[in-house]
Amino acid sequence: MNLDDLPIRDDLRGKSPYGAPQIDVPVRLNTNENPYPPSPELVADLAEAIRAGAGDLNRYPDRDATELRAGLAAYLGHGLTTEQVWAANGSNEVLQQILQAFGGHGRTAMGFEPSYSMHPIITSGTNTEWVKASREEDFSLDPGKAVAAIEEHRPDIVFLASPNNPTGTAQPIETIEAVLSAATGMVVVDEAYAEFARAGTPSALTLLPAHPRLIVTRTMSKAFAMAGTRLGYLAAHPAVVEALLLVRLPYHLSTLTQTAARVALRHRDELLGTVDALRRERDGTVAWLRSKGLSVADSDANFVLFGRFPDRRTVWEGLLAAGVLIREVGPPEWLRVSIGTGEEMAAFRAALEGVLQ
Amino acid sequence: MNLDDLPIRDDLRGKSPYGAPQIDVPVRLNTNENPYPPSPELVADLAEAIRAGAGDLNRYPDRDATELRAGLAAYLGHGLTTEQVWAANGSNEVLQQILQAFGGHGRTAMGFEPSYSMHPIITSGTNTEWVKASREEDFSLDPGKAVAAIEEHRPDIVFLASPNNPTGTAQPIETIEAVLSAATGMVVVDEAYAEFARAGTPSALTLLPAHPRLIVTRTMSKAFAMAGTRLGYLAAHPAVVEALLLVRLPYHLSTLTQTAARVALRHRDELLGTVDALRRERDGTVAWLRSKGLSVADSDANFVLFGRFPDRRTVWEGLLAAGVLIREVGPPEWLRVSIGTGEEMAAFRAALEGVLQ
Repeated sequence: MNLDDLPIRDDLRGKSPYGAPQIDVPVRLNTNENPYPPSPELVADLAEAIRAGAGDLNRYPDRDATELRAGLAAYLGHGLTTEQVWAANGSNEVLQQILQAFGGHGRTAMGFEPSYSMHPIITSGTNTEWVKASREEDFSLDPGKAVAAIEEHRPDIVFLASPNNPTGTAQPIETIEAVLSAATGMVVVDEAYAEFARAGTPSALTLLPAHPRLIVTRTMSKAFAMAGTRLGYLAAHPAVVEALLLVRLPYHLSTLTQTAARVALRHRDELLGTVDALRRERDGTVAWLRSKGLSVADSDANFVLFGRFPDRRTVWEGLLAAGVLIREVGPPEWLRVSIGTGEEMAAFRAALEGVLQ
Repeated sequence: MNLDDLPIRDDLRGKSPYGAPQIDVPVRLNTNENPYPPSPELVADLAEAIRAGAGDLNRYPDRDATELRAGLAAYLGHGLTTEQVWAANGSNEVLQQILQAFGGHGRTAMGFEPSYSMHPIITSGTNTEWVKASREEDFSLDPGKAVAAIEEHRPDIVFLASPNNPTGTAQPIETIEAVLSAATGMVVVDEAYAEFARAGTPSALTLLPAHPRLIVTRTMSKAFAMAGTRLGYLAAHPAVVEALLLVRLPYHLSTLTQTAARVALRHRDELLGTVDALRRERDGTVAWLRSKGLSVADSDANFVLFGRFPDRRTVWEGLLAAGVLIREVGPPEWLRVSIGTGEEMAAFRAALEGVLQ
């Protein structure tokens, strides 16, 4: 017996599990992790917080994660309250809950590709139909065309990643406003990389008071350097959070996760203190790649999309052979490199020069 | 703006979030938690394991949780291997993934009610149609009628909870075999409470070698006394695990959860050491309730269903007023009490005697 003999959903037949190759190499620049590990002080504080709470592990966690959500609201600012914030096991689960509440069979979700490849996968996993709209040749989004696509298809959910992944560029706030004005359903602005945006890039959080169907999603996996904790969250109108309560699995967020995320919030000065260094490293990487004559998308994130390589697989493999793992993802002829430490980026540059020669 | 103004899925309109009331009372006997907290030794070991691994929290977890699944396979025995075991954030997420892979729009899942109320909720949350079949007046399942229901409806998934919740009784293995023989789709035996079963109750794990469409689900929330950790798992044919990989969210299981569950497995002698005491307390509770002239369903679990009360709400409220929180759930006129410590059950008995007078 094998997978083909099982009565799986028809649209799963022939599919492969999503995920970047997990390869053990010296320089891992493939999943947009933050290269800076937590400090010994943070680790000690986390272990102590787990110890202090572990005596209750025979009990279910706080089903509503109230204290954590209050902390996340305070971190986000903009006058947000606990009732406007929701959290789950990674922003992927947040997105899945949004699709379960507002999507499903007979409904559609639209995205502007190339964008985060999990958006269509989670959409399909919730029996929602994916409607693909397109970006310009330079990966920007033309507001007029975006509005036209929304008016044509009237999707129940619109996804807008800003900064966009895998291209790296943030959306102008005017584009987001245009999408919000045209959309009759929910609009999800995926801000997983918001903390890395270049100066002068307002968050879509600023639009929440005027737009009750706007949802802004965030994560602790990137700027917060907590990918192993799996904590995603969102800010929206309180009624949106009420809707998600109807589809969330009860006790979805463990005591351990709630505890670790609260510790991370307490240490946010340390954790977010890496953002400036990563931004500088990113800007240097963009400049260096351009100096080599390569095309590079403007980056507001902790990664850079560069090209164009008629045979990108060969470039990817050449870097891997030199111990540098980047990501073969997104538009053909382009590759994505996550921003690591100064040493890691030096290794990347050396490896790429070797490959390009 | 309120929830009704939002474009939520039609079948969610008017619904309330699932979940028992979270009320702070002296004696909590409402969610089938294990009343015994982890020992100081276990807590110290857990804190140390978290500390030792936290230096990598900036990295994503092992996406396939290989080490944990190997440990769970070894715990389950029956010759099971890592490739036959899968884990997620609580057995609710395990069940949701099963429904995403094998259910969905146009497909059906069947259960025999009264049973675990999350089965139809998760079914609906994945756009799968719920087909309700019934148990006998005494909550047992007639194998002939179960087969007839399956042959009539040909469900894509059959749920069988054994021991059943909220009634408490395990299914005879012959009933499970009859269901397996009749079913053309997947059969999920939910064994959340298996460790509490009375002597001589074989697990459905014994049927796995002969039945590639059988899935047996388990949890660490009950016998393992780790409800706060949220770790559910399953055993099945390796191809079933491959199918779940197509729908699981990448990195769904945090480093913290994987670590804590592995620590729990190392301390399983301590954790499962509470099972015998809980069984004795359960059997004493059943006998005491029957001595009071009440009806009680045979229990293979860490809870007891008893009745019948034409006005069960008044009984539930009377117990709550005495500081004892039990669960108003399942068939009308019945109530469910989780098995706590000896002191907690004495408080329950005293409170119930007061209410019944």
